Amino acid sequence: MERWGVHEIELAGPAGGNPFAEVHLSARFQFRNRIVEAEGFYDGEGVYRVRFMPDAVGPWSYTTVSNVTELDGHKGGFEAVPPGPGNHGPVRTKGIDFAYADGTPYLPFGTTAYHWTHDMDEERERQTLRTLAASPFNKLRMCVLPTGPMRPPEVPFAGQDPDGLDKTRFNPVFFRHLEARVKDLLDLGIEADIILFHPYDFGVRGIQDMGWETDHAFLRYTIARLAAYRNVWWSAANEYDFNKSKTVRDWDDILRAIVRLDPYERLRSIHNGTRMFEVATLWDNTKPWVTHHSVQHWDSTPTDTWLKECPKPVVIDEISYEGNIGKRWGNVTGQELMERYWEGMTRGGYVGHGESLAGYQERAWIGNGGGLYGESPARIAFLRQIMEARRDGVLLRYLGRRQAAQVTVDLPPGGDYGIELIDTWDMTITPVDGVHRDQVRVGLPRRPYLALRMTRVER
Amino acid sequence: MERWGVHEIELAGPAGGNPFAEVHLSARFQFRNRIVEAEGFYDGEGVYRVRFMPDAVGPWSYTTVSNVTELDGHKGGFEAVPPGPGNHGPVRTKGIDFAYADGTPYLPFGTTAYHWTHDMDEERERQTLRTLAASPFNKLRMCVLPTGPMRPPEVPFAGQDPDGLDKTRFNPVFFRHLEARVKDLLDLGIEADIILFHPYDFGVRGIQDMGWETDHAFLRYTIARLAAYRNVWWSAANEYDFNKSKTVRDWDDILRAIVRLDPYERLRSIHNGTRMFEVATLWDNTKPWVTHHSVQHWDSTPTDTWLKECPKPVVIDEISYEGNIGKRWGNVTGQELMERYWEGMTRGGYVGHGESLAGYQERAWIGNGGGLYGESPARIAFLRQIMEARRDGVLLRYLGRRQAAQVTVDLPPGGDYGIELIDTWDMTITPVDGVHRDQVRVGLPRRPYLALRMTRVER
Repeated sequence: MERWGVHEIELAGPAGGNPFAEVHLSARFQFRNRIVEAEGFYDGEGVYRVRFMPDAVGPWSYTTVSNVTELDGHKGGFEAVPPGPGNHGPVRTKGIDFAYADGTPYLPFGTTAYHWTHDMDEERERQTLRTLAASPFNKLRMCVLPTGPMRPPEVPFAGQDPDGLDKTRFNPVFFRHLEARVKDLLDLGIEADIILFHPYDFGVRGIQDMGWETDHAFLRYTIARLAAYRNVWWSAANEYDFNKSKTVRDWDDILRAIVRLDPYERLRSIHNGTRMFEVATLWDNTKPWVTHHSVQHWDSTPTDTWLKECPKPVVIDEISYEGNIGKRWGNVTGQELMERYWEGMTRGGYVGHGESLAGYQERAWIGNGGGLYGESPARIAFLRQIMEARRDGVLLRYLGRRQAAQVTVDLPPGGDYGIELIDTWDMTITPVDGVHRDQVRVGLPRRPYLALRMTRVER
Repeated sequence: MERWGVHEIELAGPAGGNPFAEVHLSARFQFRNRIVEAEGFYDGEGVYRVRFMPDAVGPWSYTTVSNVTELDGHKGGFEAVPPGPGNHGPVRTKGIDFAYADGTPYLPFGTTAYHWTHDMDEERERQTLRTLAASPFNKLRMCVLPTGPMRPPEVPFAGQDPDGLDKTRFNPVFFRHLEARVKDLLDLGIEADIILFHPYDFGVRGIQDMGWETDHAFLRYTIARLAAYRNVWWSAANEYDFNKSKTVRDWDDILRAIVRLDPYERLRSIHNGTRMFEVATLWDNTKPWVTHHSVQHWDSTPTDTWLKECPKPVVIDEISYEGNIGKRWGNVTGQELMERYWEGMTRGGYVGHGESLAGYQERAWIGNGGGLYGESPARIAFLRQIMEARRDGVLLRYLGRRQAAQVTVDLPPGGDYGIELIDTWDMTITPVDGVHRDQVRVGLPRRPYLALRMTRVER
């Protein structure tokens, strides 16, 4: 049992009535004088589980608490050992950036495959995982709930889908499958940005307007099952403002419930549809239950403003996708996407990827995962290398879609700098002759999409 | 003497005093019962001239009018014959478009070389004319006044340049050279969009703030010399709003003076600097002394709005130039410029060209003419061919920088249409198989900058 791993308690209990609604189970995990309480969940057929992520190395003990006698007062313990290779703990914010719990910096290079798990198509899921393993992406946005038109083999709720659902009960088969995929991502070092609600039901299952009780039971159950996986992030909703049945107050309630139910303080955000600049209705990311911006906006150049107005990490999850579909959000070129990446990331934001290339051998990545056929992933890998190699004394300046023949660079006073010319599209890095101080004019080739990297050197 | 050519009367008169200010001369040209009065000008060394463009075929007579006896009451006449090949008369507006006086449509494909005549460098001027002759451009924006930093061999005013100018007198050597170049353009079929004032004096010659009397004497003299050339258009100013010494009322006065002084009603416009969307200060192109919009704006997509709010031809003279200089207005790529061309021209506007590629063998075209080294002129030639081939029953739809895999085309009801796919950058036109009616889906290659041409066909 390693630090930041998952410890699971399994208990037998009642199967009659509605255990999802009627049975309360949690466990109090103790490390020295500190107690962390984790909620349990009913996994069907009389089986109850409590999952827990220990955050310290050493002996942990626990006691279960339940309103059902046979589940109450179970005691036990385990020894958490130091993490194995590749386990840096969960990601936290660190100012306007992110870092793993062990201090390793984490730079989110996210992508989106909303429904890659819903079909339960094992071959495609394996392909998606292979694609991710070979990609620059270390975060994946994915939905718990299906969309209205989908007819997946399993859904989160019990009963007959879609017309005879019993939303007071959950479907353990669905969730076991989902959490196995979250665990697959964890093994690949990929953060799972779990989207709890979305507005794409089109009235089919009524999941946009289930009522406070059902919404919160769904939250409680999902969090109890998934929160212990250290790669989980909570996205309260995708395009929250497209859900006309919920108000900002409802979303506040949902995010506050996540804070209360998740003992690990996983990252929390909410993703907008359109309301970036309608100030009156704009989601206020300064609220304490939001850990970082999760932005949909086609332009990354206001990143500075967002960081200034609300100094939390800016993740632009949706900046339009490389693709060829009819919708404006899904048919920018790879070059245009990379332009937006560089503008955003050199301003201190984190831009996200999506691919909506329809008809390229299969359905598009953005919906169902599979393979990637665009031109941007290779350039994102190149950008990621550059961003991750950044350290004190390294300056980056993106020159954009313009093609000025020269640029004046003001170097920090007192230092000697080497300068490199980066072609962000051709993925080349070419040193500029000499060692430079103070102000220098750099001649540029007649091309857009260039950047300069200035690295402090010792003479 | 052909219709729309230039008839010139030369007279000897007084050389003493200040003939520019003290001698008034005009001639009343009569065709049947119609009289057109044209102002004359002093050309130095006791020589006075009146230039006149006859607009009808047949016998014309004239009588001079002057406050000086020796210039007054001269009579004469000439026979105007039908125009020769290539002489279609002056360009007029026709709704939101333009046409020559003989009815031939004129689609402005303009470019800018502000100061190509000021150096009086014959070799470079010849190169500029050769470049224009081989180019798609049929309109050239050019300034009368030099900029502050320039030290040209001749300037429009008499006296010692720049410090000892006598702005009550003009410099015939300068103007003879200028009008020879305007005549060169006329011979190439290129309209000369003459910029009368500009705000780039930087206090050197005081030409931004010469006072009403001098401004209007300059207007009177320039118009008297140039108006008879049928390819002349009047641009009251470049970036008028950057001249802090003049108000909108001053510009109204200047444009009204042009209306009064120019007997031919040449096209008149004024070119903005920044104030496109500051409604309170926006130049109002609906004023009757403005014949068409002369827009500086980086985005051509509001063309529809401008046409709706003020239904006169929209000429976007300055939409950023293909170039590599440090200024934002002068370093877009050829591809970006063409994107703006197609967006604007398929909306009914006329986009203009400029090239500010510095260091490509010589100074940039936009300032001094010379050669063109950019990627856009060839694409503008391709676009011009397509625009000029347009007729009733031909529809154009630009698909822009996006790359949708297919597009739905709604064809006008009742007709059969052939469809062609245009690659605006690669300059190819590829027929789409079949003959189409009503609604059709057209599959597209994975590239931006495509357009569709739908041509009505008879089965």
